[in-house]
This record gives sequence, structure tokens and C-alpha cells, in this order.
Amino acid sequence: MPTIVIEGPPLGDIEKKRRLVAEVSAAASTAFGIPVAAMVVIIKDNPPENVGVGGRLLSDRKE
Amino acid sequence: MPTIVIEGPPLGDIEKKRRLVAEVSAAASTAFGIPVAAMVVIIKDNPPENVGVGGRLLSDRKE
Amino acid sequence: MPTIVIEGPPLGDIEKKRRLVAEVSAAASTAFGIPVAAMVVIIKDNPPENVGVGGRLLSDRKE
Amino acid sequence: MPTIVIEGPPLGDIEKKRRLVAEVSAAASTAFGIPVAAMVVIIKDNPPENVGVGGRLLSDRKE
Amino acid sequence: MPTIVIEGPPLGDIEKKRRLVAEVSAAASTAFGIPVAAMVVIIKDNPPENVGVGGRLLSDRKE
Amino acid sequence: MPTIVIEGPPLGDIEKKRRLVAEVSAAASTAFGIPVAAMVVIIKDNPPENVGVGGRLLSDRKE
Repeated sequence: MPTIVIEGPPLGDIEKKRRLVAEVSAAASTAFGIPVAAMVVIIKDNPPENVGVGGRLLSDRKE
Repeated sequence: MPTIVIEGPPLGDIEKKRRLVAEVSAAASTAFGIPVAAMVVIIKDNPPENVGVGGRLLSDRKE
Repeated sequence: MPTIVIEGPPLGDIEKKRRLVAEVSAAASTAFGIPVAAMVVIIKDNPPENVGVGGRLLSDRKE
Repeated sequence: MPTIVIEGPPLGDIEKKRRLVAEVSAAASTAFGIPVAAMVVIIKDNPPENVGVGGRLLSDRKE
Repeated sequence: MPTIVIEGPPLGDIEKKRRLVAEVSAAASTAFGIPVAAMVVIIKDNPPENVGVGGRLLSDRKE
Repeated sequence: MPTIVIEGPPLGDIEKKRRLVAEVSAAASTAFGIPVAAMVVIIKDNPPENVGVGGRLLSDRKE
């Protein structure tokens, strides 16, 4: 605690996850004034057919 | 934002996901008075051995 | 179950909540093929100083 | 409702899930004074490369 | 981590929260084989006009 | 989308929220390769009697 949940598309590269966890934990530690050791970050990979933006599935968008 | 998370059993058929995202986004757009373009919907597929209802796993129920 | 969580700005009017819950529950019931009686919807009111879009708090935006 | 979401590392053994759901549902039923039949528990399995504790991925820790 | 989120109606009595946190943390510690010191539990109080069951707000039900 | 939810104790100071949202959004934008304009961050303030760490309520700890 604090616990941070990140919902996004799959982040294939583990190096990206490593850096994301480090940066988000550091930012939260500063904001809350709580040691970074207490920070928990959970990354949720969501497949594009399970996410809708603007009422349409990401898997149906050409972007 | 708004962001809507739907926790349920797996929805195998993508057409069901497509319609669910469209309908939920439209309902939320009307309620909040925010354009449907801003709506995010995330569908979470949960396997039956990871869900308990009434203290028992769905995978242990005959329903 | 299914359980649907709606994260948005405050929806002051209870009539809007009533309709949102009814419509989202009906859409989910159809998609999952599960009776509407089993649907749970939780509306989360988030104050504008607790939500950031595009890296800025909603309370700092003139929109 | 109530709905309880458990975020943790994978719980491979279904017997562990069975017992966890039963115990957590019983505890919540007592606390809320609501029949256990109404309790929903969702177990989320998170791979170690998607969880950061103390700013580092679990998959990078020797524990 | 593990992190457990409990969504329910308001649990007015702090003694109920105290016991709920203790019991749920113990059950999770046993299931995951992780010391209870690492368990995080977050209780979310939801007002009855923000929860829908069976397509209707709890505040509209006579139960 | 992506959507990031931060569960922590209350962050009284709006300047802390402002900076936290900016930093977390920037880190996620870099990781996902998605413009910061699409990032949503939701900060959840949790009172100490609703959070348990190590099986005990934060409001019962002398920290």
C-alpha cells in the first residue's frame, strides 16, 4: 500500500514494464511521503477485443 | 473517462462483446452527459475456477 | 456476478443512476445470457480533483 | 454483492482457491450480516512480470 | 501484495472492519503461503444509491 | 485508456495530486507509446479505518 493498478493494452517488452513500475512507484512514493518499498504496482494486459473506446472495440479500430 | 469495468465469465463471441461495449457506452454517455467518444469499457474474462459465488467456486457448481 | 464498476464524475441525480443501472444490467444480462437478477452494478463518484485526463486534473481544466 | 477481488500471484492449486473463497465469503457474510449466498469472490492471477513491489518486478526479485 | 478489495455497503462498526481485515488477511496468507505482514485489504463503503442489484438501486429496494 | 487507479491514504494537498497525475501519465505514455492525452488517472482516497496492512487496520497502527 499504496497499490496502483494500470489497465492498458499488452506491454510486450519486459524492459518497458520494469521502467514503468520503477517510475510510477517513485512518483507515488514522493506524493504520499511513503517509502518506495511499500509501493505495489499491478499491470493488467487487456487484449484489444476486450477493450472498447468510444463505444467500439479496439480490435475493430484501424488505429 | 468514464471508465467501466465488466467482470464476468468468458464472453466467447466477439459479436457479444461488440454489442455490450456499444450499449454500455451509450447508456453511460446519456447518464453522464459526456460524448460517447470519451467512454472506455474493459471486459474482464474470469475462468470459473477463479470465481466464487455463495462461497463456492463456479467450477464446482452444476449450474 | 457479473459485476460492473462505473468510474465517473459525480452523477448527482438519482434518476440518472436508476436508469444507468437498469440499462447496463439489461445489456450485460443479454450479453452473458444470465438473468438480470444476478447483475451487480457499482457506481463510483470521483471528485474532479481526484481524476486526471491527459496528465491534468479535471479540476484544472476549463471544460 | 458484496464483491471481493483478490489480486495475487497465481494460486495454482484449485483446492487452495476453494478454501480461500469459502473462508473469505464466510468472513464477509459475518461482517456485513448478509447471507453467504450473496457473496461474490473473484481471484485474479497476476504473472510475476506484471507485479512490482518496492519499485521492482517480482520476476526480478530473488524471493 | 496480495491486495484484497472488498466492495460492500457501509460497515459502520470499526470492530467489524477490524475482524474482517484480520480474517481475510489470515485466509489469504494461508492460501498464498505468504506472511500475513504482506497482506493489504481495502474496504470500500458504497452508499445504497450507488449500487444496483438485479437492475435496481439498493436504495429503491425494500430489503 | 490506459486507465491507472491509485489506491492510497488521503493526499490532502492538491499540488501533490497534480504532480502525481502528471508524472504517472508521462511514465505510462512512454511505456505504452500512446499520447499522454489518452491517459486517465483516478486517485482513490481511503480512510485509515478502511485499510488493513498485515491484518490490522491502519487506524490501529502507531505509524
